[in-house]
Order: sequence, then structure tokens, then C-alpha cells
Amino acid sequence: MVMAPAEESELLRRRVTDELIGFLRAERQAAESELHTLLDELEAVITAGGKRLRPRFCYWGFRAAGGVDGPEIIRAGAALELLHTFALIYDDLMDASPLRRSRRSSYRGMSDGRDRRFGTSSALLTGLLGFVLADRLLWRSGFAAERLAAVIDRFDRMRTHAIAGQYLDIVAAQSGDATEETVRRIGALKSAAYSVVDPLAIGALAADASPALLRDLEAYGRPIGEAFQIADDILGVFGDPEQTGKDADGDLREGKQTVLLTRTRALAAPADGRVVEASVGNADLDAQGAQAVRDVMLRCGALDETRALVVALKDEALAALAAADIGVDATAALRDIALEATIRDA
Amino acid sequence: MVMAPAEESELLRRRVTDELIGFLRAERQAAESELHTLLDELEAVITAGGKRLRPRFCYWGFRAAGGVDGPEIIRAGAALELLHTFALIYDDLMDASPLRRSRRSSYRGMSDGRDRRFGTSSALLTGLLGFVLADRLLWRSGFAAERLAAVIDRFDRMRTHAIAGQYLDIVAAQSGDATEETVRRIGALKSAAYSVVDPLAIGALAADASPALLRDLEAYGRPIGEAFQIADDILGVFGDPEQTGKDADGDLREGKQTVLLTRTRALAAPADGRVVEASVGNADLDAQGAQAVRDVMLRCGALDETRALVVALKDEALAALAAADIGVDATAALRDIALEATIRDA
Repeated sequence: MVMAPAEESELLRRRVTDELIGFLRAERQAAESELHTLLDELEAVITAGGKRLRPRFCYWGFRAAGGVDGPEIIRAGAALELLHTFALIYDDLMDASPLRRSRRSSYRGMSDGRDRRFGTSSALLTGLLGFVLADRLLWRSGFAAERLAAVIDRFDRMRTHAIAGQYLDIVAAQSGDATEETVRRIGALKSAAYSVVDPLAIGALAADASPALLRDLEAYGRPIGEAFQIADDILGVFGDPEQTGKDADGDLREGKQTVLLTRTRALAAPADGRVVEASVGNADLDAQGAQAVRDVMLRCGALDETRALVVALKDEALAALAAADIGVDATAALRDIALEATIRDA
Repeated sequence: MVMAPAEESELLRRRVTDELIGFLRAERQAAESELHTLLDELEAVITAGGKRLRPRFCYWGFRAAGGVDGPEIIRAGAALELLHTFALIYDDLMDASPLRRSRRSSYRGMSDGRDRRFGTSSALLTGLLGFVLADRLLWRSGFAAERLAAVIDRFDRMRTHAIAGQYLDIVAAQSGDATEETVRRIGALKSAAYSVVDPLAIGALAADASPALLRDLEAYGRPIGEAFQIADDILGVFGDPEQTGKDADGDLREGKQTVLLTRTRALAAPADGRVVEASVGNADLDAQGAQAVRDVMLRCGALDETRALVVALKDEALAALAAADIGVDATAALRDIALEATIRDA
């Protein structure tokens, strides 16, 4: 049976989710009863949504390297998704985000009528449990020892890329006036490396990829990962909360440092620039104030310029993909994921 | 050369610390520069003190199972210490403890003149980096594949025991009136399992221990781990802050639920009981108020009874050790650690 790419991608998402839920329920059988609440929260975050991007990159990296579809690569992808579940829980805590996937973020929801510190500690422990179990699922994915060694080594880099990117992110948010160089470095670590290049490489290494193929995948993955981040940052300001599942204007209140913001600073007229500086990072910013910032971003051309950068990065990625020596299925799938995540409504 | 046990234990501590610092510095060479601040903090926490209990239990579990001294078991022990460094950083954050090993706890020190949330997020990321690197060091300890599989499986249990114990701990602290059963269950998870039985088992499994030996080690480790926790809780209330390196009366202010406290509740006269209830968990408790609680604990006999429980658990552990079929070196070392940690000044 030949499937349209959208159907294939939906099937892949479902296989990853099923693997993950099955794994969590099996772990629950053996777990101390104290862990049940934490396992419930992990499962709730996972089933509330998510595009399963990292498992899909992992899968197509594997297929691009000649790997044959089987449960091992689905397990590896599910492990990356579980790691990402941990990352979402921690990001929400660090950014004080009230919503995730249209439900209360874990640290908010788990306070459960008790004090905020209880919710925070519960979310920290839930995230950690996801972190440990991700590790455990990857280790038990079923690949042969020498491939598993390369996979785990790269998984370590994926994890340290996320930590380095998040640290640079909080330093930048604290300073409140990050340069475009810093903002793009954060994107390179948190989005390009952690979300795209590392998952592609983990899949590829599981199929014993050549160094040349790893370079080809990186040439596609680095720009597409950056493009995702920049498109996501646009959505964070101009997107519909119904669609993003996040708090409206949360990124502006939080003072998130983005390419959109650095371009706005560079292009806005002085009076407009003062509006932006007074608004971004102001925890009390209201809907009207947020709209004023959006107006500046539109008026000065920063939104257009940032959208053009997303398109340029996407085109760079697609050109790299066209030049890469990988099979037709993987090429089509990677092309679809690139389009899906960079052509969005906002 | 025959060494006295104290010298041998000092040498072992030094070998573990040297291995750990060497590993962190090697990782630093390859790490993103953004991670340097976090690596510095990990090294500072490690070199500020610590008894290296978990590496020592791991080492002697290995020797008890017939393992031959070498760099592999030192690396495994160093990995457990690195995991514990993560645990200390997180515990201080969850308990809002200002001091650790006589220096500012990580979340406090890392705020570095910036706001508290910055310090909190930095400490979270530092702890996580320790968590990832612990994993990485264990995975690269150098044991043969089949032994490493058993070691890592047990390491997963060690990590989930710590998470389960910590979660039960914050639930109990929140409720403020945990039963002795709950308090001892927390001790069984956080102290007996995580601190003693799991490290012993990890060492023993690295030397391919028999199920009978694992049972013998657990018969020693379970009561000694519980005794540690209870002795530590006594120190938390009656110990000298100069010696403990922690905030004086922090456990009382925090409302930490301990065997000492449950026994005090059971034994105190009604008026004394009301003093205890009003003081424990009161964030504004002053030195005079803390002394009043100590007076009640002494007067009602709870301190004596709790000390007697420590002695009884230690005796149970030593009896199990005497009956175990392990070599004379390991027996002597495990006996020394048991005495070192349960006969303390407070």
C-alpha cells in the first residue's frame, strides 16, 4: 500500500505515542507507588498534543542511512520524545508559563490547591522521572552494542546542547538586550542541535551512517532547525493562543529574546523603540500594550524581514536536501516536515 | 603495605574525588563554552566537602563480591557521587536551604546579584548537567557489556528510588503531620535504598555478585541506611552548624518530618505538644523558639528513644554483616563506615 506523506506521518506519530504510553505503563507496574502521580502527569503531557518532531527526524535519519523500519527505531524516537517532555516541563517552570498544550503547565497543575512550591517541586520530580526513563528506553531500544554506543554518545550531546542553550537563554532573558548573534546561538543549540540535527544523527548512527551522510543531514538540519525557532518566535507574538496552546503574549511579558525582537530594535523609529523597550519583559503588560508592540514590529518591517529569514533558511535546507545522497522516501518526508513547520499561519 | 582502615578510607575518598575532577575537566575541553559556569559550580560543590559514602559503599560492594581494585570501580563510584551532587543541588532548592558544605547553596550562590529566579534556573541546569554526566561516566566506566547492563539497570532503580523518596518527602512536609510509617518509608527510599543498598548492589553487580551476596549486602545496608537518616535528622536539630555545614534550625523551620519529630509528638505532654506544633514548619522560628523545641524533645524522652533506635538499627546491620559470607577487608571497611556514620556527636 502506498500512503500519502501526511498519512505516513500521522501513522509514525501514532506509533511513537503508542510505544511511549506502553512503555510508561509497563514501568508503572514495577514502580514504587509514590511514582504513580508523576507517571500520570508525564502521560497527560504526552497525550495532550505535540508534533513528535524529534522522533520523526530520528526515524527519517535512520531511514536515510538505510535503516530498515522496526520497533528499535520507534523506541529510540519515543525516548527522544520523553526527553522532550522533560524539557517542556522544565521550560514552563523556568519561563513561568501557565499553559502548555492547552492545559495547565505541570508546575501549575500539580500544585493542586497546595502552595506553589509544592507544585514546582512536583513538576521538577516529574520532569526528572521523564529524564531517567528516556535514558532507560533508549538504552533498551534493542540496537546492537556498537551502534548503541554511538547513539548514546550523541544522545549525551543532545542533552548537553539543550542545557547549554537553556542556560544561554536565561542569561539573555536576564540581560534583556541580547544581540542577534546571541539569539541565533541559542537557536543553534536549543532548536537546530537539540531538535533537529541531533535527532537526525541519532537515527542515522543507529543505522551506521557514514560521516558524509551525517554532514548531509546536518546541512539540511541546521538551517531548518533555526527556521523552526524563528517561526515559533513569530507565532509566540502573532499566533493564536487557541492554536499554539500557550498563554497569549507570554513571550512578550517574559522578555524572550528573539530574532524578531533584535530586528525590531534595529529597525524601529526611536519613539517606537522606546515603546518596545518599556513593554518587552514587563510582567504586567496588558493586551493593549502587546498590540502596540505588534504594531511596531509590523510598521518597522521587522516582521517581514524575520519572515523572509525563515523562508531563506527553509530554502537553504531544501537545497541541501536536494543535493544529499539519500533515498526518495526520506527525502520526501524531510521535505514535508520542513514545509509543515515553516509555513504556518502567523 | 598494610594500611589502617582510616587511611584506606581517606585514600579511597581521594581517588574518587580525583577521578571526578579529572573527568569534569576532560568534559570541559569538549563542552560548549556556555557550560563552563555550570561545570565550575559542580566542581565547587564537590570539592567543598562530603564523605563520599556512596562511592565507598559501591567500592566495598564490589570488593565483597570478589572484584579486583582498578579504575573501573573508582569511575563507577565517582558517577554515583556526581549523581549525588545533583541531588544535593536539587534538595537545597526544594527545601530552600541557604547553606551546603559551609558555602552558599547553588541556587543562592548562582543568583550572583541577579534575581532569585535566575539563581534557581541556573542551579536546575547545573544539577541536570551533573545528572547527564553521571550517566555518561558510569556508561564509560569500562566494565564488560553484560555487567554494565546489570549496573545500569540498578542505577536506574537508584535514581527512581531517589525521585520517589523525594516526592513522598515533599508530600509529607506539605501535610505537616506525617506518620512514623511514612517517615520511615521516606528513609527507606532516600537513605537506605539510594544511599546504601543501591550503591552496594551496583558495586556487587559490577563484580557479578550472586543473589545470595546481594541479599547479604541488603540485610546490612537497609538498617544502616535507615540509621544514617535518623542520626542525620538528630544532627539537623541538635548538631553544630559549624560541623554540619548547614543552616542552624533549618530542618525545624522547614518542617522536615522525621522519626525524632513523630516520637516527640507521641511522647510530649499536651502543652509541650502545642509548642512543637506551633514551631515546626514556622518559617519565622527564631533561636529561642528552636531551643524550646529541643527542650521538649529532651524532656519527653523522644531524643533518647530516637538515639536508641539508631543504635538498634546499627546493631542489626553489624549482626547481618557478621553473618555475611564476605572477605575480611570488605567486612572491616563496611563495619567502619557503619560506626563512622552512626556514632556522631549530636
